Amino acid sequence: METSSKENTYERIIQASIKLFNERGERYVTTNHIVAHLGISPGNLYYYFKNKEAIIEEIFKRYEKELLAFIGVEVPQTEIEDALHYVGKIFDTMWNYRFIFMDLGGLFSRSKRLKALQKDYTLNRVEPLISGYLQALVDKGRLHMSAVDLKVFKHNFWLLCRYWYSYDKLRSGTLGSTSSARGSLLALGLLKPYLDEKDKETFDEYYSKKFQDMDW
Amino acid sequence: METSSKENTYERIIQASIKLFNERGERYVTTNHIVAHLGISPGNLYYYFKNKEAIIEEIFKRYEKELLAFIGVEVPQTEIEDALHYVGKIFDTMWNYRFIFMDLGGLFSRSKRLKALQKDYTLNRVEPLISGYLQALVDKGRLHMSAVDLKVFKHNFWLLCRYWYSYDKLRSGTLGSTSSARGSLLALGLLKPYLDEKDKETFDEYYSKKFQDMDW
Repeated sequence: METSSKENTYERIIQASIKLFNERGERYVTTNHIVAHLGISPGNLYYYFKNKEAIIEEIFKRYEKELLAFIGVEVPQTEIEDALHYVGKIFDTMWNYRFIFMDLGGLFSRSKRLKALQKDYTLNRVEPLISGYLQALVDKGRLHMSAVDLKVFKHNFWLLCRYWYSYDKLRSGTLGSTSSARGSLLALGLLKPYLDEKDKETFDEYYSKKFQDMDW
Repeated sequence: METSSKENTYERIIQASIKLFNERGERYVTTNHIVAHLGISPGNLYYYFKNKEAIIEEIFKRYEKELLAFIGVEVPQTEIEDALHYVGKIFDTMWNYRFIFMDLGGLFSRSKRLKALQKDYTLNRVEPLISGYLQALVDKGRLHMSAVDLKVFKHNFWLLCRYWYSYDKLRSGTLGSTSSARGSLLALGLLKPYLDEKDKETFDEYYSKKFQDMDW
């Protein structure tokens, strides 16, 4: 039973850290807060993680893995509902790890290792997948984009995904329950003008209704 | 002469702070660094500013004023060159105060007053001006945007402006001399699909050349 208890403590530390980081902001949560929240001793935490950065690194790897698990696997579908679903899933995954995106500059300036990890992740993993997904839709004639359009879109889309929660919090004062859905809508709004004419109409109808239901 | 010397010290503190904040990151610059850089006594600085936050607040107000001075006054022109110029000027102004945008979350989480200032600035000043500028171009028939398109664009455009420098630094590792120009191009890329067909061609020719000259 000892092994299972160890695994359990490791996992409980991770889950408690994600929860506290998301609620209070990573910068304001120390390992002392984490052990107090769990009712364990500091020594118990340090047995698994040498410091807070090690916990963050493990969480960052989980976020990466979770996001790549579907953006790398899902075959581009040609129905509008699938694009909505795909983008919605990106925002929902980021929501679960939103503390990362609330303070990207600060987080990465404090850890060179994490900064290197995220750079490799963005350049070598996420960007090629986004480009590939778009290119497949272009090849199928569902999107009308030049090579330059595609590059511009790739940057603007990823920038919007990464900074949406920070922007929304500064603008709205707090992150509400509709934040994720509003972020997805803005990201999809980037795509809309490139849709094939016949898709545009279907999209517009669906989109305008969703958009007007939200509080901006 | 005393007044002029006083004004001079006040101004020198502001200019040195902008320079050091931009070069090293605001978080890593203390009032001690500022006085050492200027060769003045700490008492001399505290005579003008009660703390670092007071310096930042003054700088933030200057940034606001500088940006509003042209986004609020320039009459929307219908030539593509004017739009390029307008967007370029936004990015250049932000470049001069880039430390603000490298760590927006951190900066505003440490100062409630600054957070309130920026919120009012975004909601009540910048957003209406951007919307007004776009609406004027729509009214003149140069942009084809529905009311929803315009709202989506307003958010995506402003989010891109605010977070571009942070995104570029994390992605490129450092901010280079072309950062401002690349940011403008991405922001203009948001506008392109809404241009009237005959403008689109002129725009595309100009844009593609500029885009391909840059290192992405």
